[in-house]
Amino acid sequence: MGSDGDYKWVGKSSVRPDGADKVTGRAKFAADGNMPGMLVGKILRSPHAHARIKSIDTSKAEKLAGVKAVAVGKDFPTPPNKPSSIGILVANFSEMSDKLMARNKVLYDGHPVAAVAATSAAIADKALSLIKIDYQILPHVIDVDEAMKSNAPVLHKKMITAGVDPAPKKASNVASRVEFGFGDVEAGFAAADAIVERTYKTKPVHQGYIEPHSAVVSVAADGQVTTWCSSQGQFMVRAYCARLLMIDEAQIRVIPAEIGGGFGGKTTIYLEPVAIMLSGMAGQPVKMTMTRNEVMRASGPTSGTSIDVKIGATKDGKITAGLATLRYQAGAYPGSPVAPGCMTAFAPYALENVKAIGYDVVVNRPQCAAYRAPGAPMAEFAVESAVDELAQKLGMDPLELREKNAAKEGTTAPYGPKFGVIGNEECLEAAKKHPHYSALLGPNQGRGIASGFWFNVGGESVATVNINTDGTAVVMSGNTDIGGSRASMASMAAEVLGIDYDKVRPIVADTSSIGYNDLTGGSRTTFASGMAVCNATSDAVDQMRTRAAKVWDISPDAVEWKDGHARPAGPNAGDFEPMSLAEIARKSAKMGGPICGRAAINAQGAAPGFGTHIVDVEVDKDTGHVTILRYTAVQDVGRAIHPAYVEGQLQGGVAQGIGWALNEEYVYGEDGRLQNTGFLDYRMPVASDLPMIDTVIIEIPNDAHPFGVRGVGEVPIIPPLAAVANAVSHAIGTRMADLPISPPKVLAAIKNGS
Amino acid sequence: MGSDGDYKWVGKSSVRPDGADKVTGRAKFAADGNMPGMLVGKILRSPHAHARIKSIDTSKAEKLAGVKAVAVGKDFPTPPNKPSSIGILVANFSEMSDKLMARNKVLYDGHPVAAVAATSAAIADKALSLIKIDYQILPHVIDVDEAMKSNAPVLHKKMITAGVDPAPKKASNVASRVEFGFGDVEAGFAAADAIVERTYKTKPVHQGYIEPHSAVVSVAADGQVTTWCSSQGQFMVRAYCARLLMIDEAQIRVIPAEIGGGFGGKTTIYLEPVAIMLSGMAGQPVKMTMTRNEVMRASGPTSGTSIDVKIGATKDGKITAGLATLRYQAGAYPGSPVAPGCMTAFAPYALENVKAIGYDVVVNRPQCAAYRAPGAPMAEFAVESAVDELAQKLGMDPLELREKNAAKEGTTAPYGPKFGVIGNEECLEAAKKHPHYSALLGPNQGRGIASGFWFNVGGESVATVNINTDGTAVVMSGNTDIGGSRASMASMAAEVLGIDYDKVRPIVADTSSIGYNDLTGGSRTTFASGMAVCNATSDAVDQMRTRAAKVWDISPDAVEWKDGHARPAGPNAGDFEPMSLAEIARKSAKMGGPICGRAAINAQGAAPGFGTHIVDVEVDKDTGHVTILRYTAVQDVGRAIHPAYVEGQLQGGVAQGIGWALNEEYVYGEDGRLQNTGFLDYRMPVASDLPMIDTVIIEIPNDAHPFGVRGVGEVPIIPPLAAVANAVSHAIGTRMADLPISPPKVLAAIKNGS
Repeated sequence: MGSDGDYKWVGKSSVRPDGADKVTGRAKFAADGNMPGMLVGKILRSPHAHARIKSIDTSKAEKLAGVKAVAVGKDFPTPPNKPSSIGILVANFSEMSDKLMARNKVLYDGHPVAAVAATSAAIADKALSLIKIDYQILPHVIDVDEAMKSNAPVLHKKMITAGVDPAPKKASNVASRVEFGFGDVEAGFAAADAIVERTYKTKPVHQGYIEPHSAVVSVAADGQVTTWCSSQGQFMVRAYCARLLMIDEAQIRVIPAEIGGGFGGKTTIYLEPVAIMLSGMAGQPVKMTMTRNEVMRASGPTSGTSIDVKIGATKDGKITAGLATLRYQAGAYPGSPVAPGCMTAFAPYALENVKAIGYDVVVNRPQCAAYRAPGAPMAEFAVESAVDELAQKLGMDPLELREKNAAKEGTTAPYGPKFGVIGNEECLEAAKKHPHYSALLGPNQGRGIASGFWFNVGGESVATVNINTDGTAVVMSGNTDIGGSRASMASMAAEVLGIDYDKVRPIVADTSSIGYNDLTGGSRTTFASGMAVCNATSDAVDQMRTRAAKVWDISPDAVEWKDGHARPAGPNAGDFEPMSLAEIARKSAKMGGPICGRAAINAQGAAPGFGTHIVDVEVDKDTGHVTILRYTAVQDVGRAIHPAYVEGQLQGGVAQGIGWALNEEYVYGEDGRLQNTGFLDYRMPVASDLPMIDTVIIEIPNDAHPFGVRGVGEVPIIPPLAAVANAVSHAIGTRMADLPISPPKVLAAIKNGS
Repeated sequence: MGSDGDYKWVGKSSVRPDGADKVTGRAKFAADGNMPGMLVGKILRSPHAHARIKSIDTSKAEKLAGVKAVAVGKDFPTPPNKPSSIGILVANFSEMSDKLMARNKVLYDGHPVAAVAATSAAIADKALSLIKIDYQILPHVIDVDEAMKSNAPVLHKKMITAGVDPAPKKASNVASRVEFGFGDVEAGFAAADAIVERTYKTKPVHQGYIEPHSAVVSVAADGQVTTWCSSQGQFMVRAYCARLLMIDEAQIRVIPAEIGGGFGGKTTIYLEPVAIMLSGMAGQPVKMTMTRNEVMRASGPTSGTSIDVKIGATKDGKITAGLATLRYQAGAYPGSPVAPGCMTAFAPYALENVKAIGYDVVVNRPQCAAYRAPGAPMAEFAVESAVDELAQKLGMDPLELREKNAAKEGTTAPYGPKFGVIGNEECLEAAKKHPHYSALLGPNQGRGIASGFWFNVGGESVATVNINTDGTAVVMSGNTDIGGSRASMASMAAEVLGIDYDKVRPIVADTSSIGYNDLTGGSRTTFASGMAVCNATSDAVDQMRTRAAKVWDISPDAVEWKDGHARPAGPNAGDFEPMSLAEIARKSAKMGGPICGRAAINAQGAAPGFGTHIVDVEVDKDTGHVTILRYTAVQDVGRAIHPAYVEGQLQGGVAQGIGWALNEEYVYGEDGRLQNTGFLDYRMPVASDLPMIDTVIIEIPNDAHPFGVRGVGEVPIIPPLAAVANAVSHAIGTRMADLPISPPKVLAAIKNGS
């Protein structure tokens, strides 16, 4: 491992262990869950963007035949109002509880106010209609810039935040202010020959997973909870439910369903604690499934933003300073990804003077949730647009400007640490050499490029590898398989064990079957859980080496493991016939018992990922419609354990980024109600909107991982926003700084010029 | 651990973790399994006891609308025809495959010949009726003594067994002959003043579990198998299915349902491989559930036996020799428990001259399966009846005769090894002192006593203990919870961790979630899996001690674990505040990752169990009906981890033993067909048949187990057969040596005398 060797299974796109189940419909997703005696749970949601709840009368609903439980905010405990860490996550469970079921105020259209469980969906709906709520409607605010104005309606009376400029004495919608950077940006700008300064805006966009949130929950007579649901982390669900309901984690078993997309949006929960409450009240299992309307009104999205960027360079293209002010809308409760926005904004560049200031701002919308590289696409959209404009101003090739200023090994990242070995320059170089970059463009066409950076994270992972006596193996990890982790875990285990991939069965375990795992997020799974799998497999190999050594009566150190066999090595090389894994496994009872490898780690050494994208667009000047003609995504992934899945991740990220760039937006009415609550009105890209997306996989191994993995899934959503905007800007000759670049905006830009 | 300390959770009858689920109907048993698109599988069974299959025509069944798969013997692979070891089990998978689906011959009424899967039970039944089988009926044999006659119909032409007397040259029904013992029995008998010699017979009896066999199986398009079923060992099911179908173990996931009784009868399988075959053919899940008729005709039972015992003693009560010849009927394929019968027959006694010869004999009945202490109840029935008769002959108290000859520490067991510390004498002494033994008897009443011995076994077990960050824990083991293992595992883990029992959640894992575990059988679970749980918990404790040591910057050896806290000890005692498990758990991310204890062992040091029972009966001389007036079961269990469950095991074993002694038997017609195929005709004891059964728990700890556990579940079924027979013999003055002691036999004995 570790060396750039010729691997048998790592780097091969083997058959997907979950493939047959998924294409034949056998795979069970959250809403496929069923339990005997199961009730239907439904939620009554606020129709108002901001209102005080004067009273709730559930008496008629409770009396309706077939209604088994009715719950409102006061039925739920109130956890401590402070941030708590759950592995790599931080959450305020008091705020989360209020979000899951409003107490005194509703803060957005779609905010839950009551829930019922009934014997049928029709009865549950009828019961919701019988609940009477007396609202006192309050003024609301939707846009982040509006929310920061001094006369804006204030959501939370106690939100008086230090560090906000001017220093506040009264409540505002600013939940926090963060600042990153170093050097002297003013001096940097003074040394610049050219400066670009502009404000960029992006809209909140939804993660757009196909599968709505759903959970089936059963609470036993003794309080033991079984939860079947899809999420990005069964342990996250368990921990959140335990903290929100103030019960023991050991009392809850979360069984992960297959997941129909998450993209960060399923790193939190909406239904499970409500279903547990209802099931406990009713004494029967409860199933709750969101409609798309509920998904759009009350789950996700990521922040809408307003970002000022100022960047300066000398005439030979050395960037002298970068400054950004980022205003991220958090939704009804604090928690926008403005901090990672600040940290990633200038990360592809080696700068001496850099500063990013961020504001987390509450508005009357659903609280935002993580979305693939949370915070980075908007920030890098702004910076990568500015860099493109700077290149124009300097008359330089935009890739050349990026190469001149590229972050590399030893560069101090804008958020503090020095980069280790990274693949930023290699991506830029590969993009430059790619035939796409030098292909000819036609009339009304434009080419854009942009880079992207993401940290990638490690975190806690547990894995076990059980060797069966017939020489096969079962690898268990505790992460939802979102992007192919079953295949990658099996590939790595097969490689380390030296047996065939199809002899290794990968399993995604429930929360009672394996130790704690941080969720599938932050591009951590193949890195951190993969490392746990490698370590657990090596543990099993060590046990087998030790047993072979015992048979041969030599030191375990004199036994090497190669090609699935224990072989005498060193002074004993050739003394004995190699013993295969199957032979050793067959003898396991007589040699101490089953061979069970295990690893429990907090994985360190996650390595950043970089990518560079090239896109060609054509603008229809009559309609304003933008066609994506060609797209090439270059990315350093460290090591592509399963290249087909890696390619899929790149293509998926690009597709989502293109949607963000061109079409996706929420339409709120003057009344603060969301008007486009379905996929017909909320316009995500479909297959016919996109060309085949080319990918170039760069592999600059991460030394901290046995096979060099960095992480893949998040970088590819970052560059498309700026790349597409840059391409359209070049095609029409006008800088497009306000996403989405929808036809009306393109037409207006063509008409008005920049 | 280990010391006879005052424990907090061990020895306490804590709330049963599965109790609420079981009494509220939430617990899911095998037949509660459901999968989308599930078909119903049914089996066509032979109506003949012995016949050649000339042809099978399934064409009409295949054409019936709604029939999705039809399978016959030739569809199944034929595994190697030799004994294979699966952990503590040995099986011949060629024979087993023939049993599951007949190839050339049917060997008993109920032998499967074809199977169908259809969209409804009615269609499946119709399809079975459309299958045409041309049988050539052969002569059959049902009784073990008949089967050993030289002119008996022979089941297997190739069965020519060495060591059978006279040495055979032609095929017979004797599958094997075994012999155990030492000394010179003839010399022993020559030295005896009194000799008792008699032949005893017992009938095959069924394990009588309430839940019929059932399995839900799904085979995915890529061949991956998921099996939901109840059994005494999910790993047994996996291994057997893999060997029978010749596929990889890693390809099969067996999820254990709750089990509605097994008593040994679910240590093998009947449906699962057939369901896998049908599901694979149909491409849909298949559920198969036996009717009671099928359970009685084609599953279980234990052997019917014919046993000669000769025993001699000097007039002062020293037993000089014991000799037994045991003929055990195996059913249609070899595999009676005659070997353990031979080994256990004289085990409660310290003998110098002892010999037991056993014959495994095939007959035209279903192959026997394990039943609680397989082989021992019949053998010890014969010997304990003979010892009772010997006491009568010597004019000695039967307990005194047993005490005089009791096996004790250092005694060479009749099967070879020397006993370690055992509780045989303590049981006899406790029985003698018990008020029951000196209570007065009325007219037509009799008192019987008998002892029992069982090996108890160890074997392979894996356990994991995962510490949650909130200070709770999940304990996972891989054994079906038959007699309270969830409660006992949680009790032991809570004791070792030093946290409350209700903070520990015990889980029974499926085959993909934990390493290999031998099945729940041989009274091994609380001993072997309990040892694994203790070791895994200690592993977690060591990790916590190490982490505390790191915080305190002292040696881990200077940290002791007590009452759920790491405490500085030795030279560092008192230097730091103790750290609780919850405190250490909370810090786990920052201290290396999750705390996951693990153990994988082949448990050695299982220690034998002994028991002595006292029973009073009253005989109705007009009807021959026997009433059990009073029953006391004394048993050394080593350590009663959960006394209420231990008591339940003792009472359950006694109830089954009483049924065996008094009522249970199969009624075969002249045609070789079973006539009593339901619980109305197959008479097991019901609540109104029995008094409250008193128990006396003796605790002579087994040093090999952290808490001293020996094993509990099998010993209590052994003494009742002889105890009841001895009591009835005394009540009516006639030796009852042929079970069951049903009213007609009692009446006949009263009429005819001995």
